[in-house]
Amino acid sequence: MGFNTFGKIFTFTSFGESHGKAIGAVVDGCPAGIRISEMDIQKELDRRRPGQSGVTTARSEEDKIEILSGVFEGSTTGMPIAMLIYNKDMRSRDYSNIKDVFRPGHADFTYEQKFGIRDYRGGGRSSARETAMRVAAGAIAKKFLAQKGIGIKGFSREIAGIVAQRTDCSVIEQNPVRAPDMDAAKKMEKAVLAAKDEGDSVGGIVEVVASGVPIGLGEPVYYKLDSKLAEALMSINALKGVEIGSGFGSAKLKGSQNNDAMHISRGKVKFSTNNSGGISGGISNGDDIICRIAIKPASSISKEQQTVDRRGKQAKIAVSGRHDPCLCPRAVPVAEAMVAVVLMDMYLIAKARKK
Amino acid sequence: MGFNTFGKIFTFTSFGESHGKAIGAVVDGCPAGIRISEMDIQKELDRRRPGQSGVTTARSEEDKIEILSGVFEGSTTGMPIAMLIYNKDMRSRDYSNIKDVFRPGHADFTYEQKFGIRDYRGGGRSSARETAMRVAAGAIAKKFLAQKGIGIKGFSREIAGIVAQRTDCSVIEQNPVRAPDMDAAKKMEKAVLAAKDEGDSVGGIVEVVASGVPIGLGEPVYYKLDSKLAEALMSINALKGVEIGSGFGSAKLKGSQNNDAMHISRGKVKFSTNNSGGISGGISNGDDIICRIAIKPASSISKEQQTVDRRGKQAKIAVSGRHDPCLCPRAVPVAEAMVAVVLMDMYLIAKARKK
Amino acid sequence: MGFNTFGKIFTFTSFGESHGKAIGAVVDGCPAGIRISEMDIQKELDRRRPGQSGVTTARSEEDKIEILSGVFEGSTTGMPIAMLIYNKDMRSRDYSNIKDVFRPGHADFTYEQKFGIRDYRGGGRSSARETAMRVAAGAIAKKFLAQKGIGIKGFSREIAGIVAQRTDCSVIEQNPVRAPDMDAAKKMEKAVLAAKDEGDSVGGIVEVVASGVPIGLGEPVYYKLDSKLAEALMSINALKGVEIGSGFGSAKLKGSQNNDAMHISRGKVKFSTNNSGGISGGISNGDDIICRIAIKPASSISKEQQTVDRRGKQAKIAVSGRHDPCLCPRAVPVAEAMVAVVLMDMYLIAKARKK
Amino acid sequence: MGFNTFGKIFTFTSFGESHGKAIGAVVDGCPAGIRISEMDIQKELDRRRPGQSGVTTARSEEDKIEILSGVFEGSTTGMPIAMLIYNKDMRSRDYSNIKDVFRPGHADFTYEQKFGIRDYRGGGRSSARETAMRVAAGAIAKKFLAQKGIGIKGFSREIAGIVAQRTDCSVIEQNPVRAPDMDAAKKMEKAVLAAKDEGDSVGGIVEVVASGVPIGLGEPVYYKLDSKLAEALMSINALKGVEIGSGFGSAKLKGSQNNDAMHISRGKVKFSTNNSGGISGGISNGDDIICRIAIKPASSISKEQQTVDRRGKQAKIAVSGRHDPCLCPRAVPVAEAMVAVVLMDMYLIAKARKK
Repeated sequence: MGFNTFGKIFTFTSFGESHGKAIGAVVDGCPAGIRISEMDIQKELDRRRPGQSGVTTARSEEDKIEILSGVFEGSTTGMPIAMLIYNKDMRSRDYSNIKDVFRPGHADFTYEQKFGIRDYRGGGRSSARETAMRVAAGAIAKKFLAQKGIGIKGFSREIAGIVAQRTDCSVIEQNPVRAPDMDAAKKMEKAVLAAKDEGDSVGGIVEVVASGVPIGLGEPVYYKLDSKLAEALMSINALKGVEIGSGFGSAKLKGSQNNDAMHISRGKVKFSTNNSGGISGGISNGDDIICRIAIKPASSISKEQQTVDRRGKQAKIAVSGRHDPCLCPRAVPVAEAMVAVVLMDMYLIAKARKK
Repeated sequence: MGFNTFGKIFTFTSFGESHGKAIGAVVDGCPAGIRISEMDIQKELDRRRPGQSGVTTARSEEDKIEILSGVFEGSTTGMPIAMLIYNKDMRSRDYSNIKDVFRPGHADFTYEQKFGIRDYRGGGRSSARETAMRVAAGAIAKKFLAQKGIGIKGFSREIAGIVAQRTDCSVIEQNPVRAPDMDAAKKMEKAVLAAKDEGDSVGGIVEVVASGVPIGLGEPVYYKLDSKLAEALMSINALKGVEIGSGFGSAKLKGSQNNDAMHISRGKVKFSTNNSGGISGGISNGDDIICRIAIKPASSISKEQQTVDRRGKQAKIAVSGRHDPCLCPRAVPVAEAMVAVVLMDMYLIAKARKK
Repeated sequence: MGFNTFGKIFTFTSFGESHGKAIGAVVDGCPAGIRISEMDIQKELDRRRPGQSGVTTARSEEDKIEILSGVFEGSTTGMPIAMLIYNKDMRSRDYSNIKDVFRPGHADFTYEQKFGIRDYRGGGRSSARETAMRVAAGAIAKKFLAQKGIGIKGFSREIAGIVAQRTDCSVIEQNPVRAPDMDAAKKMEKAVLAAKDEGDSVGGIVEVVASGVPIGLGEPVYYKLDSKLAEALMSINALKGVEIGSGFGSAKLKGSQNNDAMHISRGKVKFSTNNSGGISGGISNGDDIICRIAIKPASSISKEQQTVDRRGKQAKIAVSGRHDPCLCPRAVPVAEAMVAVVLMDMYLIAKARKK
Repeated sequence: MGFNTFGKIFTFTSFGESHGKAIGAVVDGCPAGIRISEMDIQKELDRRRPGQSGVTTARSEEDKIEILSGVFEGSTTGMPIAMLIYNKDMRSRDYSNIKDVFRPGHADFTYEQKFGIRDYRGGGRSSARETAMRVAAGAIAKKFLAQKGIGIKGFSREIAGIVAQRTDCSVIEQNPVRAPDMDAAKKMEKAVLAAKDEGDSVGGIVEVVASGVPIGLGEPVYYKLDSKLAEALMSINALKGVEIGSGFGSAKLKGSQNNDAMHISRGKVKFSTNNSGGISGGISNGDDIICRIAIKPASSISKEQQTVDRRGKQAKIAVSGRHDPCLCPRAVPVAEAMVAVVLMDMYLIAKARKK
């Protein structure tokens, strides 16, 4: 398995640098006969696209996806699906300030040390631009999962310390921070813009809920559903934490509070609460899958910071350019995509595991 | 890759049910020439062993490890190292109450649904007994890492809401809850025993710190160090969350607070803070690796709970037997082991990636 | 994936040295609900066991298999199935002559050079004794495949230049060389015994036929059925070649001769010939799968040979002890096992690949 | 690991259909700092290109390679290297005769049965056009290996029953059949053209020799060098057999003939013969690696053949179009490429396995 590949049966491999020729992905292991079009993928990509509002970067990336293989007469063929986005918005003048100086909070220093060479243009491979291809792969997984009755919905649960108190999914795409609570959304937006004005950034928490997931996805004991979700989500840029169900809150509970009591409702086993986040012993239990991820404040800020340069000298840096003052709104489709690819992979694996 | 195997170059495969004949592991990919003995492994296993104090289960498991292969004249040979523990303490009378009734918070229901058959004796494969083999594999990794100057230290940061305020590693093994703060340890112990008296359990947070880690472990972008740590840790029983560095706390910070400024100290690049938890862009940056995991209160409680049985009828259950009222103390060596196996795997991978 | 693991969904990991404490295997990914017993496995192991006749080694290995996990109340549970054979016949006096001198045709020299240490007792890990665990894993796969109507049959096609002209499967287990032709079998046996008397050994060709294989096993383009069969078979000790269908013979044919014409027979697509060996484009086509493997004459011969020792000096060696003068008869169940594990893995993968 | 990915550390994933938009590959795990250019890759591709002579297809494919990522300022960066060839020569009129009728010897029937849908244009994914991307990936591996002193040379050992008696590598690229013997080359060419005139095709044997391979590549026991070479080579279109060293010939030898005696020459261990093909116990022994592959006569022939169509009716087919009457000359660079990627992967793995 390559280092840039995720999954076991349904896999995807991403490639490309932020300001290189193109970014792309190869999705493999998709069953044949799934209807898929560039439109299906473009729709999801547009949700991740920068320049959507004042709370995201003003960079304008068209991010036009092109399917190169694996789809014939509108259907997947079971062959690898290659997708490509040619990079357009490459402002070559931006590099001088980051070519020789390591931006705090970024991967500049570690890439340079590890590889001895670094494509510094726009962060190269370490740029969050790579996540566009996760969204593209996720769009295919979502299409498959939807046919199985599985839906995936993400939103900003918390931004700059402001917590969405309600979970009204109908309003998520109606506010620029993608919060499921319009009151909180307004406060969040204000906080983001205030940080932006200061040349600073804010962090937050994104939540993803998968509903309609059948019982039995996930394999004991090193291919558990929660374990693979954690891996998938933690690989997203700027992630610092992943929790499932009651998560870190469970540390403060008692067993009698945290255990989800079971009962029979209309002939089916139901859980009275969902502290498990829909996963018991690493296997989906039929309840909603609930994940939350901690997203740090964006590292690229125009406030001056203390750093060092390639020659080992101390330096100051103010990261100019058009950056996201809060990563949460655009992280929502990325997190959804990662949950989708894990669920699809687990779905196919579960089929293989049957007698 | 099997479902019970972890790792890419340094791998281990575990097997065995809680009350079956034996549990075991096969460690593969270990370089030849590492001095290793059953004693090295037994020492770590003894830290995980039940019956160490009033805050853990009173079950007495000898857990005597036997090396079957891969070690010759005291050294690893590069061949797979198989290790075995024969199960001794199998109290056959304990099963009737869990054979047909699903214990809330356990994997009973999902295993039954997924596989159609379930080794119900002591939880079978889903039992935390499996973690003994993680500790065994981790002991080999620790031995290797120690030779490279890498040390791994775990402890209970929080139990039942009580937070260790100090981080004095010298006291960790001197208190039954494995806290790095004797004052907090006493309060934690008291809280655990109180819950135990009520037939209940408490949760907590375990922290693991790896020091001496060289710059450059971890691969972009789906073999990131933090991603693989999250996967490894989240696969531990009862885990509900993983965070790195500033973790979920970063959601409330600004970029100017969370970014770790860099400076030169004695000719070396140093970070002024360690909110990154020692990982930048998925690659170790030379600072301490810091992970924290949320451990739910143990699901096995003697308080009566509402549940269902195999025939789809509602039922009541009180899980009798000798159980841990708090999982944190015994989870410490398990979490250390998982961090060790990830670091060793990444260490070997990093070597393969050089020109 | 470990270096001692084979397969993707149905996997097995083997461990153990020839004269170490034990050899064993962990089979993972087996569906739950397959009836399996130690007897099922022992039956296959007995076919591989040495000491069956004059044409195999006189060593007496009981090879008693023990299942440690993954089987409950006679059925597989979906959990890893660990199997163990404790080594009994370890004649400690045999090592002095091979401890410091490299046996020609063996792995002594390469293991020593690669790992810097070598378990020289009976060849250690490089001994064909490891293949017992392939047979054990294969026994599980055979049981599964039989339920799907798939049968696997191996035999010696050629030994010491004598070719079996008939393919009468009913006689295979009735002659010591496992040939499907009693006339050829007698000549083969004679040739083997003649070589044995000279302190020499002979090579041969083993053929394996899998019948009842459904159309559709194998994945384009790097998980082709023939590609995986070649990998699996070539990993057997003493293998020097693998061919499918018309194999090396196809090099001398024309397309009009080698192409298998297709026709309809009783409503089904049939092939007029089977030069494809049942595989078209890497995918099973419904016809019998036919593989042949070239097995070199055993390297252990008592004739004196020129070699070198660990100190870099030239030396003479005559490998005493009880060795197989022809490896083919005992290679038959091993080759069958490898074909079985590949087919079972492919069968499960094919299920995962469906919509 | 995806189904279209090969390798463990140095991996490549190919995609694309013969007459789709483009074919491509993503090479991952390449160390940083290797000088590589599109020219390096184009050079190898041009050796595989059709239309080079009368013995290959007259199709004119420009096969112009474009590197999209992973190379910066002329050097690899350690990031995935994506390569693309846009398809140009797509003659849309060619499909009607193969859309509904299965060509004997091709994958048409199995793809249709397995996937229920098939990109029939030029054979789609099952076309040998895919091998262009193997050559591209192999070109990178060759560049790396050359720096380590490892050279790889392939040639046609046998075509249409005519065997090259000499092995003069200097003449290989000077004759259209790529034979290492000019006399044999002339006869081979004549035989190929004669078959072409008859609307038929011929098979042959390609040999690949890798020299300068250090001792120690290959891992026991399921990542053996010969096992991985067999897997890699057998995945090439039209392959029916793989042999190493004395190969199938060893079946007729005695141990005393086949064992390679060892001696000391100028202070180094040398083998008197190379029946092992440079591999002992799955590990390179320092001698030349020698592989031979059996290539069937091309399935596409203009002679009329008996077949069936998609509706289950018997049919006749004559595969018109411009096809290779002998696949060997163009298979040479493909086989070299597969040997190169295996050796590079094994080289990097061997580094990871050191203490």
